[in-house]
Amino acid sequence: MAKLHRLISVVLRLAAAGAAAAAAIIMVTSHETTSIFGIEIEAKYSYTPSFVFFVVAFAVTFAYSLLVLFVRPGSTASRLVLLSDVIVGMVLVGAVAATGAIAHIGRNGNTHAGWLPICGQVRAYCSHVMGALIAGFVSLIVYFLIIMYSLHAVAEPLCSCH
Amino acid sequence: MAKLHRLISVVLRLAAAGAAAAAAIIMVTSHETTSIFGIEIEAKYSYTPSFVFFVVAFAVTFAYSLLVLFVRPGSTASRLVLLSDVIVGMVLVGAVAATGAIAHIGRNGNTHAGWLPICGQVRAYCSHVMGALIAGFVSLIVYFLIIMYSLHAVAEPLCSCH
Repeated sequence: MAKLHRLISVVLRLAAAGAAAAAAIIMVTSHETTSIFGIEIEAKYSYTPSFVFFVVAFAVTFAYSLLVLFVRPGSTASRLVLLSDVIVGMVLVGAVAATGAIAHIGRNGNTHAGWLPICGQVRAYCSHVMGALIAGFVSLIVYFLIIMYSLHAVAEPLCSCH
Repeated sequence: MAKLHRLISVVLRLAAAGAAAAAAIIMVTSHETTSIFGIEIEAKYSYTPSFVFFVVAFAVTFAYSLLVLFVRPGSTASRLVLLSDVIVGMVLVGAVAATGAIAHIGRNGNTHAGWLPICGQVRAYCSHVMGALIAGFVSLIVYFLIIMYSLHAVAEPLCSCH
């Protein structure tokens, strides 16, 4: 039973790490230059603070997910893993929400604020950001499963005390 | 000891509920009409999807925080409270992050995307949104404390098993 738990945990961590790496890489490589009426326009993730936060959050999640694989189950450090998992989960929600909010304006604009959509001009850039968002969302869902799995184990009636 | 735990828990829930109510109310009442070059401009929270999400998230948090006060400690429902607390915490992070990202554009604009700042035109509206963000952040911090307090209790060596 303990071996199955460990296997599920390792598979989930690797899945989360893979999706997080994909999210960070797809976002970092989002770059497009186009010209409108002779004026050159450059779209880059680093021009938007939320996108930079997204890259940092998922890069850290990638490294963290791999590091946690080396934590021995039952050790003192393993007690802290659930706490840090919850913190990582929250940071990922923040990164996806902030990026999603900006991507929504990029795609649809906001007529009341006078912000025009830009995805018509920089299609490849917008597709990249959308791809990064999807990969990030997958990583977030996997982290949500990891947290719920751990909390379920911790909150179940027959808990194993030390 | 159990009584002290219960007291801390009740105080934290009431603080979270109060801050959540303040966040939702301040955001809902953010409304301003101004005219620029004879054109009337109306700023309202309902024009921005992220702000609507913010209001719904904090209204639900307010109701949830009060409801949890009626859950008897040690009951079956109390086991689910930690799980739902983590979910509520994540939703709050999402609401604050999305609203913060949009508020940042409202205040500073994004020259690369051609989005101009609007806070110079609708100062009262922007102050309201900023006030809602601060109240929301306080509620989020209190929820973070509630979750960490519960996780600490659950993960501590001398756990009380049933």
